[in-house]
Amino acid sequence: MNPLIYALPGNESLAAVLVRELGGERGDLVVRRFPDGETYVRLLTTPVARPTLFVCGLDHPNDKVMDLYFAASTAHELGATSVGLVAPYLGYMRQDARFNDGEAITSGRFACWLSQYIDWLATVDPHLHRHPTLASIYSIPAAVTPSAAAISRWILANVDDPLIVGPDGESAQWAQDVAKRVDCPVIVLNKCRHGDRDVEVSLPDTAAWKSRTPVLIDDIISTARTMIAAVAKLGAAGMRPPVCVGVHALFVEDAYDMLMAAGAGKIATCNAVKHPTNAIDVFPDIASTVNRAFAVNWSRK
Amino acid sequence: MNPLIYALPGNESLAAVLVRELGGERGDLVVRRFPDGETYVRLLTTPVARPTLFVCGLDHPNDKVMDLYFAASTAHELGATSVGLVAPYLGYMRQDARFNDGEAITSGRFACWLSQYIDWLATVDPHLHRHPTLASIYSIPAAVTPSAAAISRWILANVDDPLIVGPDGESAQWAQDVAKRVDCPVIVLNKCRHGDRDVEVSLPDTAAWKSRTPVLIDDIISTARTMIAAVAKLGAAGMRPPVCVGVHALFVEDAYDMLMAAGAGKIATCNAVKHPTNAIDVFPDIASTVNRAFAVNWSRK
Repeated sequence: MNPLIYALPGNESLAAVLVRELGGERGDLVVRRFPDGETYVRLLTTPVARPTLFVCGLDHPNDKVMDLYFAASTAHELGATSVGLVAPYLGYMRQDARFNDGEAITSGRFACWLSQYIDWLATVDPHLHRHPTLASIYSIPAAVTPSAAAISRWILANVDDPLIVGPDGESAQWAQDVAKRVDCPVIVLNKCRHGDRDVEVSLPDTAAWKSRTPVLIDDIISTARTMIAAVAKLGAAGMRPPVCVGVHALFVEDAYDMLMAAGAGKIATCNAVKHPTNAIDVFPDIASTVNRAFAVNWSRK
Repeated sequence: MNPLIYALPGNESLAAVLVRELGGERGDLVVRRFPDGETYVRLLTTPVARPTLFVCGLDHPNDKVMDLYFAASTAHELGATSVGLVAPYLGYMRQDARFNDGEAITSGRFACWLSQYIDWLATVDPHLHRHPTLASIYSIPAAVTPSAAAISRWILANVDDPLIVGPDGESAQWAQDVAKRVDCPVIVLNKCRHGDRDVEVSLPDTAAWKSRTPVLIDDIISTARTMIAAVAKLGAAGMRPPVCVGVHALFVEDAYDMLMAAGAGKIATCNAVKHPTNAIDVFPDIASTVNRAFAVNWSRK
């Protein structure tokens, strides 16, 4: 039976691609707030005896998780055969250890809760740093769409003579993968973080790459402080204004303006998180991932 | 062992009363937001091998539940012997049935989740309408502090010749209980609700009570539309400006101004939800309830 695909508010365009690519049916739902701030959810299309899938990006997750929880758990309650989640951005991946006594390891706690009411999960490049894979915190099947293929295609079509630059050690995994696909050189900077917004980076020797266009790549651009520090270092070293590529465009507060002011030549992000800088389309790749990993859930009658 | 009592932000004054009345120890914690909107929680006082208690009112619950979830589940993870919740206002009690196909019964879904990471619950007059008791949706022990005693004491001290008025059938339970304690007459109005903010009421014969001061009592004042309709009806019937008493002072949007403009003589609410109209102190009664129902959790060594 073909899957029923519900979009939580703001996720309609990805849901439309999934409906088309997976041969699914669009599920209608109502999500609103009562005057007292509580969530109201109604599934207008019945999920009874159907495989279902909710599309819900989880940036700024606190605003969204109650809506998702009520919608998904109600689908279960009403008799859906399975309830999947496509979250192009998966929140609560960044606090992945107890750095100080008594801290909540929110990545683990969040995964634990989500795994209780969702049967499977698909996302785009989650922030895996100390957790080696999603399976180390999620007890449900989880499939990852890598953004490197879409980013590489975009660089090949839009940047002449690129030099891929990872702004810190954590980003090395994405930077090296993309450089290999684009077949161009790569360097990785070293970062020292002093606080949420206080970041310092050091640059290796770039003398050999002055004729190339630096392409900074990071998985999450949030305050953009890491990217800003890297742009400044590249500028001080006499490099060309860099292209800044982000997988997940959170851009909190004045991050976008600050990054442009720091000397970014251009900013291009994947559409995993909706933002005016979105230029790199990962929706077809998400559909392929879901199809490959989870179509078995609905291909049996 | 005496209990460790943590206050989520905004709940410090009730926590202080509980520390004093229960012979507990105050637990320090940090709750803040990362720039990307995610919650950071750190329990500064260790809950290891201690009975713990979190104080967290759950009005506007979506803003607060992730903080509570991370704090309470981390206390469990770190080795607290028990984790209780004192929520002077318990959210998600109002959608207690599926009025239309496909609706989420959020009261049940919310209770189900909370019961997974909290061991026991204490609250003040939850909105029990179709659910006969908290035990019908909460699988953990739950104790209720009735506000009627504190409200009755306040009326006896502040209102001459009161006539207790329940603004609708749902409020009859509180109104009749208070009238009995105050030893004064009571009437209950009939309500017809057409929408979140559209409410109509009808009034029984009040000719015999013209010399009394009407005291409207309801459990939740949210948009105040029920209370406003009742105030208008009493005014049209030539009654004195009523005193409006609310157990839970949500007062969304312009509710307070609208209620005063409708002709309320005075508004007095319990301090279960913080609001400038708070005049009725239920904190000592909450402490008594917790002591009676749950002290067994920490009185054994």
